[in-house]
Amino acid sequence: DENALVSWDEAEQFIRLFHRENRDAGPVERRLEEVRAEIAATGTYVHSAAELTFGAQTAWRNASRCIGRLYWRSLVVLDRRTSGTAEEIFDDLVGHLRLAGGGPASRRRDVWSGSSRGDRRAEPDWTPPADARRVGRIRPVISVFAPARPGRPYSRVWNDQLIRYAGYRRADGQLVGDPRYVDFTEAMTRLGWRGKGREFDVLPLAIETPGDGVRLFELPEDAVLEVPLTHPEYRWFAELGLRWHAVPAISNMRLTIGGVHYPLAPFNGWYMGTEIGARNLADPDRYNLLPVIAARLGLDTTTETTLWRDRALVELNRAVLWSYQAAGVRISDHHTEARRFLAHVERERRAGRRTPADWTWIVPPMSGAATPVFHRYYDEADQRPNFYLDPPAR
Amino acid sequence: DENALVSWDEAEQFIRLFHRENRDAGPVERRLEEVRAEIAATGTYVHSAAELTFGAQTAWRNASRCIGRLYWRSLVVLDRRTSGTAEEIFDDLVGHLRLAGGGPASRRRDVWSGSSRGDRRAEPDWTPPADARRVGRIRPVISVFAPARPGRPYSRVWNDQLIRYAGYRRADGQLVGDPRYVDFTEAMTRLGWRGKGREFDVLPLAIETPGDGVRLFELPEDAVLEVPLTHPEYRWFAELGLRWHAVPAISNMRLTIGGVHYPLAPFNGWYMGTEIGARNLADPDRYNLLPVIAARLGLDTTTETTLWRDRALVELNRAVLWSYQAAGVRISDHHTEARRFLAHVERERRAGRRTPADWTWIVPPMSGAATPVFHRYYDEADQRPNFYLDPPAR
Ligand code: HEM
Ligand code: HEM
Repeated sequence: DENALVSWDEAEQFIRLFHRENRDAGPVERRLEEVRAEIAATGTYVHSAAELTFGAQTAWRNASRCIGRLYWRSLVVLDRRTSGTAEEIFDDLVGHLRLAGGGPASRRRDVWSGSSRGDRRAEPDWTPPADARRVGRIRPVISVFAPARPGRPYSRVWNDQLIRYAGYRRADGQLVGDPRYVDFTEAMTRLGWRGKGREFDVLPLAIETPGDGVRLFELPEDAVLEVPLTHPEYRWFAELGLRWHAVPAISNMRLTIGGVHYPLAPFNGWYMGTEIGARNLADPDRYNLLPVIAARLGLDTTTETTLWRDRALVELNRAVLWSYQAAGVRISDHHTEARRFLAHVERERRAGRRTPADWTWIVPPMSGAATPVFHRYYDEADQRPNFYLDPPAR
Repeated sequence: DENALVSWDEAEQFIRLFHRENRDAGPVERRLEEVRAEIAATGTYVHSAAELTFGAQTAWRNASRCIGRLYWRSLVVLDRRTSGTAEEIFDDLVGHLRLAGGGPASRRRDVWSGSSRGDRRAEPDWTPPADARRVGRIRPVISVFAPARPGRPYSRVWNDQLIRYAGYRRADGQLVGDPRYVDFTEAMTRLGWRGKGREFDVLPLAIETPGDGVRLFELPEDAVLEVPLTHPEYRWFAELGLRWHAVPAISNMRLTIGGVHYPLAPFNGWYMGTEIGARNLADPDRYNLLPVIAARLGLDTTTETTLWRDRALVELNRAVLWSYQAAGVRISDHHTEARRFLAHVERERRAGRRTPADWTWIVPPMSGAATPVFHRYYDEADQRPNFYLDPPAR
């Protein structure tokens, strides 16, 4: 319940965690006194920039479904708590996508804070800001907008990811585009959007603010890096006309830090290939391409025992990895990401911390047992800060 | 604790279940009285043949890790409760394997009981006994040996499956055979067994009885149906000299029915191909064949992004399915078995029953998301009767 006052227990727990892991942050008792007084007076409290950065990074560290957590310290945290209007929010989201995708940074501001500690250069993924304009050099970014305040309405984005493709049900019943977004696309259409009816139309952003209600914004082309899919061996693959976007940016999860809820805090990493090749383009209720690719490969699809699904799946995933690499867009394969995850678990263990993980999400959706993450158990604790799925905004 | 008296609660629950699902079994209250008196007098009670059959079948129905439960009613239950000596047990196990693999049945007895109800002919898998001698026509079978009785020792088999291959660590440190069974093989060697040191040597059965301690028995060749592996496209595959056995028969799980524990109750189904091709022959700590097959396929193994592991995995699994089919040995693929499992869940639902299932075991170890069992949640209850893993006998 976002209308409740901030829980003192959660606030205290977080402030102590922050000071335990950031020894240069000053005396914890003084900060606890401040926070206690602020909650008593206002029902909530305001995170310092360092607390916000650390809070978002540890929320990632605690995301038990995420295999990509090795680089949690390198998360770039954009403090957008003062952006109030739909235009400001839209401008920030465009800036986020540009920064995340290595495109030109936002016009309005490009202040950004990385790790709260001085050790970023030690991170394998750290690149100096000078590089920040190299398109395709995907970096993990989160934009944190205003927190929910007791009893007040707040801003949200209706989209579950900042970039997704429209889905259309044509008059003859045939589906075009991403079937998962047919309802959402219809909602956009009722709000006045006109999709082009193609397989890969980027959806508009639906930004809802207390002041303006919901408003739609079209993302500028240079904020939406996309990759056309080709195959290292099969020339016909390009003829399928497939593509996917470079930046997966989840925008429907609430960030919870020390009892404070940030209902709008979109974040992105880079893609693990299977998210595209083994889910978005392959699931029967998404683009459902395995039968199409199997037919092109000339496989016998009259019986399951030829493993035509598995063979088509592998070729689709080869194409994804190959195409992103050819386009210079950062992506990782599930074997590499699985190995990194185990390195993360081990590194955390050495730091005296447990790594909560959900086996059913960590194990990749293809070749599960061929990755090392399959062959072990994990802690399942719900540790905070963390990200939570809210009921849909619509 | 097998030494405890049988729990009346569990006994009652099972007897009521048996009568609820078997309306022709007579009045439940009378049977409950009998059982209560028997437990009071002896600390345990003896299942009727019909109870034993139904108990074993429902234990399979409740096995939440098993994807193959659609045909639970067709389980053939061999009542071996009176077999006491190691020779008798061995003879029964040989008979079990022959019957399960469609080979000639046991010499000593070939009495066997199927479903306790008259509806077996309605089961898709049912074949009349006349067929029982067709080799390769694998059928699900369980042999139930004597129950544990309070305070008395009982018989067990040390092997975790009736048929498994030896593993050897050679003087130069190289592993030959199945690495998982190196320790077990060494234990057998200490007991006097002499393995041939090859990749696929069938291990002896180690049968432990209160009377004789542990004794080793060599399985006769005609009880161990095996399939040499070839590939539908690649001729070189046969040169790898791979093979696997036809019948997976788990022998280290305790069957628990109505509070009575059967420590020796080996059971088998037919193989799902991935158990062989995505685990036994592929796991790094088993036969670890993906690098070997990738090399033969000429794949670039210097980077993970070629998905050489995934491609080798698919070809290995094609070979498994192809070879078993070519040999006339029943096997199923993970797509078919997944679809059957969902049919089972639905059929059970219509019968008013929940199907407890463990997602992490039900989802196949390859192409997880390409099978329909991936995309849903399951009940996780521990329902009895069931199978439980005991601490290793050694
Ligand atoms: C850096 C590269 C990253 C990779 C390769 C990666 C990989 C993944 C994958 C494969 C999933 C499962 C997605 C699915 O099956 O739908 C996932 C889930 C998740 N990741 Fe990451 N991730 C990355 C960065 C991040 C970042 C920066 C954050 C947050 C700051 C994050 C938070 C999460 C959360 C909360 C989930 C669960 C989403 C849900 O419940 O739907 N990840 N990640
Ligand atoms: C009829 C064909 C059958 C198929 C295709 C089948 C398939 C499977 C598969 C794929 C597994 C997972 C194995 C693993 O990953 O190690 C499994 C586990 C299991 N199955 Fe079945 N099964 C069959 C018959 C049976 C029968 C007849 C029983 C008992 C009467 C049974 C009881 C179990 C149990 C208890 C497990 C869990 C084993 C453990 O915990 O290690 N299954 N089954």
